[in-house]
Amino acid sequence: MTANAHIPVDVLIEDEFLRDGLQNEARLFTLEEKVEFAQALARAGLRRIQIGSFVHPGRVPQMADTDALARRLERLEGVTWTALVLNATGLDRALAAGLPHLSISVSASESHSRRNANRGVEEGVRRILPVIERARATGVRVRAGIQCALGCAFEGYIPPDRVIAIARSFAALDVEEINIADTAGLANPVQVESLCRALAEELGPKVALSLHLHDTRGLGIANLVAGLRAGVRIFDAALGGLGGCPFVPDATGNIATEDAVFALEEMGWRTGIDWQALRPLVGRAESLLGRGLPGRIAHVPVPPWARPGDVSEPDPGKGREAAR
Amino acid sequence: MTANAHIPVDVLIEDEFLRDGLQNEARLFTLEEKVEFAQALARAGLRRIQIGSFVHPGRVPQMADTDALARRLERLEGVTWTALVLNATGLDRALAAGLPHLSISVSASESHSRRNANRGVEEGVRRILPVIERARATGVRVRAGIQCALGCAFEGYIPPDRVIAIARSFAALDVEEINIADTAGLANPVQVESLCRALAEELGPKVALSLHLHDTRGLGIANLVAGLRAGVRIFDAALGGLGGCPFVPDATGNIATEDAVFALEEMGWRTGIDWQALRPLVGRAESLLGRGLPGRIAHVPVPPWARPGDVSEPDPGKGREAAR
Repeated sequence: MTANAHIPVDVLIEDEFLRDGLQNEARLFTLEEKVEFAQALARAGLRRIQIGSFVHPGRVPQMADTDALARRLERLEGVTWTALVLNATGLDRALAAGLPHLSISVSASESHSRRNANRGVEEGVRRILPVIERARATGVRVRAGIQCALGCAFEGYIPPDRVIAIARSFAALDVEEINIADTAGLANPVQVESLCRALAEELGPKVALSLHLHDTRGLGIANLVAGLRAGVRIFDAALGGLGGCPFVPDATGNIATEDAVFALEEMGWRTGIDWQALRPLVGRAESLLGRGLPGRIAHVPVPPWARPGDVSEPDPGKGREAAR
Repeated sequence: MTANAHIPVDVLIEDEFLRDGLQNEARLFTLEEKVEFAQALARAGLRRIQIGSFVHPGRVPQMADTDALARRLERLEGVTWTALVLNATGLDRALAAGLPHLSISVSASESHSRRNANRGVEEGVRRILPVIERARATGVRVRAGIQCALGCAFEGYIPPDRVIAIARSFAALDVEEINIADTAGLANPVQVESLCRALAEELGPKVALSLHLHDTRGLGIANLVAGLRAGVRIFDAALGGLGGCPFVPDATGNIATEDAVFALEEMGWRTGIDWQALRPLVGRAESLLGRGLPGRIAHVPVPPWARPGDVSEPDPGKGREAAR
């Protein structure tokens, strides 16, 4: 059991440093280094950690040891190890590795889907549904994901109706969560709130909604707040804000886990995560990668009145009630 | 008349690169360089530009030529040159320099006020009221400002009631705008929305509210969105996000003008400002300062579908109505 596993949580953060964060990095992390990060994230209070993806090892060499990593990580009470699956072959590997939870996803963008998966959106959805069904049949917990749901780097605008239709087909398969991904970091808060409200209305309370946000254009945390307003209580983030295409100068990846936690706790939402405990971990990642990471709060001094490790007592005057 | 001065605007951005941005920089900008930035900001569509402050030249050498700069800048239709005044001596200089608009401000934090102005909050307010009255009597447009209104780097929490009381004393003097400053970048969106709503209710529609936001902890743009929700339509920002204490590693200053404009335009709010025209200006500032600036959007590639210079047509599906 990790230190904070007893603390009730209002918002769940899934850390994707080991998957979305690392997947484009040329410097390959060893299995031992990945284990170190996974365990340290859990110790800091992360309750769901995406450790990799079951994609073709030739295409994404950094993810080649996801099977081995899944087998290496011990069960920890209060912590869910999860991974990304994009097709039937990936599911076979994930099931063999014994992970209790999976993200299984498709793209809502025609051009992104064709480039990434060599098929259009319609075929992508048609092929992923039986994969989800099979995973569910084995008892694995599944969240179904929609990539490029808020915009596409190749074609721009993605019609919300298309996203809602895909979500509807996922909900029919008894998934516990549907993940809306702003894969290219193109969303704005108005759009996020509007799409999430439409989805919540369409799907009802039986399916949880989660948001996967990137901070490419500086709107990541504002989009998180917009998601909160629309009732979203699960967000993906990556330690340090690692991610983004390495061929794009200054491109940034996921919202930084420590920044998301800091923002939420400041607003009075409990995450169970100690953002101050993430600071040395950001430093460790920066030293392994040989460069600074874009996350903000790990790089500013802790104000003198901040209470280290205190993740449950909101500041007076920053009442959580107002956020609800 | 600048290129965009005819475009109706929903939100006014005041750029403070030349004041809050530069004031802590050791590298002194020449008068010619300052003129270059002021004019380029106006050409990009900025309608209010804070060019400096009338503080003691020995204390802030970078601001020593504010008088000369004010005299050098020609009138431009649709553009307001403004500066910061903190006391009676500063007002004398500002009036002599002939500026049509001034920000006159005090701190709401006891410790910040004592360190910065050598007096407590109560005395600070008592002394600034006649300065504001005198400025108003000369016909100068005044916005009255409250520093550290959302938190203080030295003492943390600032009671909203204190901020509201100061605002009330300003409103009694017929100022046209009251500026709420998150001087140390400590605010969160819940707090911003709550304080701005309380102030709007207290002050009524005759006084405009504006927000001065810093992005020190990554919440700057989220706080802007929170301010918008509470009805604020004027925001301070600085080109490139310049600012912050030079002795704090990675500390960042104001929200970046280009990021604020981008965020607003993405949500369908018209600013009259072409954020793409600000990109080369950020590059110029970085080359003069010899380092990268924290603003985000100037450093990512323009997506292929973005229309250069188009500041009036919101993207379909990103309707401005939803933001209101």
